[in-house]
Amino acid sequence: MSAEDIQEKSDVEQIDESPEKVEVPPEDVVEDEVVDTPTYLRTLLEGARAAAPPLSRLAASVKNEALVAMAEGLEEATDLLLEDNEKDLDAFDANNGREAMADRLRLTPERIRDMADGLRQIARLRDPVGQSSGMQERPNGMKVGRVRVPIGVIGIIYESRPNVTADAAALCLKSGNVCVLRGGSEAIHSNMAITRVLSEAGQKAGIPDGAISLVERTEREAVLELLKQDRFIDLIIPRGGESLMKLVTEHSTIPVIKHDKGVCHTYIDADADLEMAEAISVNAKVQRPSTCNAMETLLVHQGIARTFLPKLGKTLLEGNVEIRGCEKTRQYIPDAESATEDDYGQEFLSLTLAVKVVKDMDEAMKHIQTYGSRHTEVIVTKDYGRALRFLQEVDAGAVMVNASSRLNDGYQFGLGAEIGISTTRIHARGPMGLEDLTCCKYVVYGSGQLRE
Amino acid sequence: MSAEDIQEKSDVEQIDESPEKVEVPPEDVVEDEVVDTPTYLRTLLEGARAAAPPLSRLAASVKNEALVAMAEGLEEATDLLLEDNEKDLDAFDANNGREAMADRLRLTPERIRDMADGLRQIARLRDPVGQSSGMQERPNGMKVGRVRVPIGVIGIIYESRPNVTADAAALCLKSGNVCVLRGGSEAIHSNMAITRVLSEAGQKAGIPDGAISLVERTEREAVLELLKQDRFIDLIIPRGGESLMKLVTEHSTIPVIKHDKGVCHTYIDADADLEMAEAISVNAKVQRPSTCNAMETLLVHQGIARTFLPKLGKTLLEGNVEIRGCEKTRQYIPDAESATEDDYGQEFLSLTLAVKVVKDMDEAMKHIQTYGSRHTEVIVTKDYGRALRFLQEVDAGAVMVNASSRLNDGYQFGLGAEIGISTTRIHARGPMGLEDLTCCKYVVYGSGQLRE
Repeated sequence: MSAEDIQEKSDVEQIDESPEKVEVPPEDVVEDEVVDTPTYLRTLLEGARAAAPPLSRLAASVKNEALVAMAEGLEEATDLLLEDNEKDLDAFDANNGREAMADRLRLTPERIRDMADGLRQIARLRDPVGQSSGMQERPNGMKVGRVRVPIGVIGIIYESRPNVTADAAALCLKSGNVCVLRGGSEAIHSNMAITRVLSEAGQKAGIPDGAISLVERTEREAVLELLKQDRFIDLIIPRGGESLMKLVTEHSTIPVIKHDKGVCHTYIDADADLEMAEAISVNAKVQRPSTCNAMETLLVHQGIARTFLPKLGKTLLEGNVEIRGCEKTRQYIPDAESATEDDYGQEFLSLTLAVKVVKDMDEAMKHIQTYGSRHTEVIVTKDYGRALRFLQEVDAGAVMVNASSRLNDGYQFGLGAEIGISTTRIHARGPMGLEDLTCCKYVVYGSGQLRE
Repeated sequence: MSAEDIQEKSDVEQIDESPEKVEVPPEDVVEDEVVDTPTYLRTLLEGARAAAPPLSRLAASVKNEALVAMAEGLEEATDLLLEDNEKDLDAFDANNGREAMADRLRLTPERIRDMADGLRQIARLRDPVGQSSGMQERPNGMKVGRVRVPIGVIGIIYESRPNVTADAAALCLKSGNVCVLRGGSEAIHSNMAITRVLSEAGQKAGIPDGAISLVERTEREAVLELLKQDRFIDLIIPRGGESLMKLVTEHSTIPVIKHDKGVCHTYIDADADLEMAEAISVNAKVQRPSTCNAMETLLVHQGIARTFLPKLGKTLLEGNVEIRGCEKTRQYIPDAESATEDDYGQEFLSLTLAVKVVKDMDEAMKHIQTYGSRHTEVIVTKDYGRALRFLQEVDAGAVMVNASSRLNDGYQFGLGAEIGISTTRIHARGPMGLEDLTCCKYVVYGSGQLRE
């Protein structure tokens, strides 16, 4: 999956609302109403934990064949998947009229084919497990190095299109990790159908039972309970909006790698190629505004504002972008609205753009440090020194010169696939690929060495 | 610092007790009694946060010169440090008679010289900041790679010898990180004196004010408050006993890399060189039993137990090791006590050893998986296949063949220095050196690339 799936506007809204709602799971979801959520989760997690050691030892060929079998399974089950997806759509339409979200929830034969192709693509990527690095012989003769191993059991909490379920399961499987998936309640039937198909096809191909686990309880209590299971889960990856991040940060006793919001800036330097600057600005804002790597605020050096802003403003306004500018911006784009303090640092996730004219790069970098979310930051310049200084001094998962922020993405960066874009500083920062779903252990080849 | 400093027995006891105690800080510690702990911490952390960007940009030469100046500062301040250390010793003796702990708390001119030498050694290590990796040109022509940057602000919570204060400060400084140190209350005067000397010497050499911060409030509330400061602190490293780990796990909203306990096993295979097996077993248990990488349980293949155990038992008992064995063990070492279920999985941190005779390597690995803490696991064998299988299948920060578990250590593994041994799976596992105190950001050199 890619940055495309992350934090689309209505996902965020959905998540922001869900913790407040008391959700009643569909009747057919809870098979045994006698089992309470902690007991249900305990059973699920014991199965997941037990699957971790055998899964971690599987050869790449077995995992790859399983991924291909799972892809075929999905395609063969198309009718069944569409049927179960229909249940979600029915429930969704009944409760809620938002068409964009219903569209994302919808499976089609083509989308199922795309999901299957995604699995095949992951099958073709290099298996990171077992790769060793830094092997050296120490003065006492022992050889020491690091070897990549799976993290273990990874809990992924998300609210998104059903394809995330297949992608996350496949990425975890390929990297030797058990996944415990907790998708949004609105997609529960689709997610159950997808994981059932994946599990069955996977198990036939030699994947241990429990390796792909879905939490079918949709109430908030299940998430809170999940976040306390540090004996069973090694890592939590939350993907979603602010309230999900807050919930996870406050309640998790398990290590967390957040895929949090992107408040991304593009700074147009005095020495920018203005044609390139316009193309990058438009692409970063308009190409897909609902994603975390879309630009939210444009910073323009005062020396070129008079030349640059009127033309850019015209293009953006024609593209239905709502511009909220500082006073100077509005001198050059009279149709811009007046920006308030709240507009800076805002993740609009829509065709709204904050614009500010700055004195120089120092002011731009200070603005980015104050308002940015350390996700993706861009400078457009022809000046060598300022390019290097911006790359060095700006603190973000990805810092870019002369390129659209929309290119901060696992595929674009050559990782082959990504589970999302991490905004946590430790372990993995920026697009998180297969390698980042592993950790390292030290191995020592000795011949009787002792500590003196 | 090394594994030597970690989890010495009385440290653990100290930590286990401290959260329960309501500690009254020494009167001269709290300079302004009007300032409450949250306000005090806020001021401290704002200073620490502000120091992070300028510190992250310092050239290696400046950091190295500062480290050397700090080393000299410590040596020049010897009399002053001894004086303040005496205050801690006086307070400690008054409240508590444990001599081993008082000894570790004690500074001497020689120990101050050792601390200073530690700083000089860190100055000589390679600076990880700015190292780049994986730089590649993508099909669209943009160049993408990762660059190592400091993590930011690192909070280190420990209870240990005062030298940890200097080591932790130096490792953070060298890796470009601000440190917020929270040492044990029993060493507060020593820690204040050390950080004062380090800060003054560092600042003269160009280190930003606030880069080395010590939390001088010694009450538990200060730790709880610290653990919630995710806006100011990027990473918490707790070093200590079980109750500290529990406290941090439950209350931290900041990412945590734990330096938790080591329940380390040595498995003597049927095909072991028995002389080597005895040397390794004795070294792993006796050389320094109070450390996290000392052996706690010995597993012996039934096929060699009759030959191996009587001789080993004699050596260990002569070395004052208390042996707690299974029934079969006691057949071969009649003076061994009877092991209870509780003895397996126990971190004795003393001259006590649990021993179990196992049927084969599978039983040994199963025992390790059930009772081990994933810290350090050793096999002694001459069999190639079992050596490789043990290395692959055993899950621990360090898995070793034919070497003493006591060698799992940053110096021994060639990292030059370590902040401790991580038992967290993500980011850094095993000895955590300078590189593990950094994270990576992506940098992109573009020439106008857009997302299509």
